[in-house]
Amino acid sequence: MVQTMPIVENAIKEVCIALVPETMVIADLGCSSGPNTLLFISNVINIIAGQCSKSIGECDPVELQIFLNDLPGNDFNQLFSSLEKLNQGTIVEQVPEELHARNGTLLNKDNIYITKTTPSFVVKCFQEQFHKDFSLFLKLRHEELVYGGKMVLTFVGRKDEDVYNGDMNQLYGLLARSLQSLVAKGLVDKERLEAFYLPLYGPSISEVKEMVLESHMFKLDYIKLVELSWDPYDDTEGDDVHDSVRSGINVSKFVRALLEPLIASHFGETIPDLLFADYACLMSKHLEQEMSKSAFIIMSLKKL
Amino acid sequence: MVQTMPIVENAIKEVCIALVPETMVIADLGCSSGPNTLLFISNVINIIAGQCSKSIGECDPVELQIFLNDLPGNDFNQLFSSLEKLNQGTIVEQVPEELHARNGTLLNKDNIYITKTTPSFVVKCFQEQFHKDFSLFLKLRHEELVYGGKMVLTFVGRKDEDVYNGDMNQLYGLLARSLQSLVAKGLVDKERLEAFYLPLYGPSISEVKEMVLESHMFKLDYIKLVELSWDPYDDTEGDDVHDSVRSGINVSKFVRALLEPLIASHFGETIPDLLFADYACLMSKHLEQEMSKSAFIIMSLKKL
Repeated sequence: MVQTMPIVENAIKEVCIALVPETMVIADLGCSSGPNTLLFISNVINIIAGQCSKSIGECDPVELQIFLNDLPGNDFNQLFSSLEKLNQGTIVEQVPEELHARNGTLLNKDNIYITKTTPSFVVKCFQEQFHKDFSLFLKLRHEELVYGGKMVLTFVGRKDEDVYNGDMNQLYGLLARSLQSLVAKGLVDKERLEAFYLPLYGPSISEVKEMVLESHMFKLDYIKLVELSWDPYDDTEGDDVHDSVRSGINVSKFVRALLEPLIASHFGETIPDLLFADYACLMSKHLEQEMSKSAFIIMSLKKL
Repeated sequence: MVQTMPIVENAIKEVCIALVPETMVIADLGCSSGPNTLLFISNVINIIAGQCSKSIGECDPVELQIFLNDLPGNDFNQLFSSLEKLNQGTIVEQVPEELHARNGTLLNKDNIYITKTTPSFVVKCFQEQFHKDFSLFLKLRHEELVYGGKMVLTFVGRKDEDVYNGDMNQLYGLLARSLQSLVAKGLVDKERLEAFYLPLYGPSISEVKEMVLESHMFKLDYIKLVELSWDPYDDTEGDDVHDSVRSGINVSKFVRALLEPLIASHFGETIPDLLFADYACLMSKHLEQEMSKSAFIIMSLKKL
């Protein structure tokens, strides 16, 4: 690399000067898996940044697309996890900032999502955050798509218009109860629980429709809500739970697959085992009483 | 997926009809890692293929670019190795066909690359294969690059114009000797060795220059040959081997990293351990006598 880098540097500088590109596509054919690849990319980025700062005022920031190419057997996991370490600031899902700022003590008690006792201010925060995130999502996808391009989305939603009445309230209400019982046993700090909110919101179809219309970016070709059993192994159409213990365990595993990294980083690595064991029991008892289903919104959008 | 697929199908069909695209870019935002992702892609490909066959004669085959997007922690290794299973026919490096067709017995004795005793017919086969592969490589990269785009290549080459005289002849000549000693011990069939050729060729600078000129596709901005010690841990500039045993082991590990999959698939999974132990010994003895260096060609090309 030491020998090659000056040649790469010259090549990049000449391309920058000759083409003044808005977007540069860089392909590393036969990349390695790990630090060497990132060192190469980082060198390339520095060269381009240096080149741009020389002609500042003349050019907008260059968009870089970097393609890493190697045999399929290359350890890309190692590569992506190294990238993750570089980008620790990246926020993927967000809890409304206001809730953290006021540190929740009086806001949502020991709950982690919206429940019957959640004050309307907190509900509004969740809704506004969803509005912000989903608008940004639509805006960015709109930039990426060609005219006439289409996008099919599937995400969790809410069947009922009433924001206090949906399966997510129940699903995460039970998880909050399991967390509360860990607090009661002295295994989790009360303050940790009070500072914890799920970075999720399940919108209704009409909320989503309104946002798509307001955006003026997409035509809504199709939208529908479908309901699937909480137990991902349960493909039956009916409303009976055949084996509530087995289904309780399945639901607990499903929610664990979704939330474990979040739970572990907030409450500590030892908590998920305890939490999801308790949650499986609570869930089994819940499913003895009633079959619960998750609502998913499926929609198809066309770029305008 | 069962619920979503008809919506995806409609979206694709409408895009195909409205845009008659030459290239389609499909992004799976939040892909899973494994069979489900491949099932989704495979469904998408079938829908597009079906759509194209309906309007046959009207459109050329569509180029598909599929982007799989998820958190960096997704198991992409699993995904790529599943892809590899789908594509078992893909040839990445090639041994000249003629050598396999005539099954080598009289052609190159027990050698695996070009040595002093290799007949000129075999050398010609290696050269023609390199010519074919490198021309195709240039052609495909030419298609991918924009005008003014650049490409920096680093690959193994040969310092001496004489094709019989290069470090690769020595490096792989010693490996052939280790294979021969496994044959002598009855651990490898003589016929297996006689049917084995390395899918490699180290060209000289003038061979490469000529091909680039002949292609009329690229301007040669820069070309240089650099030499690096066979031992990848030896950064010294001199011609002394400080510790020939340690360096012998390092070179053996380096060649093993390069060739193990090839050796194991041809000679069996148990062979690499035996082979590279023997090779490390031979290599140490060789390095006691002389320091050997690999020749690498670095070049920078500009699309014409």
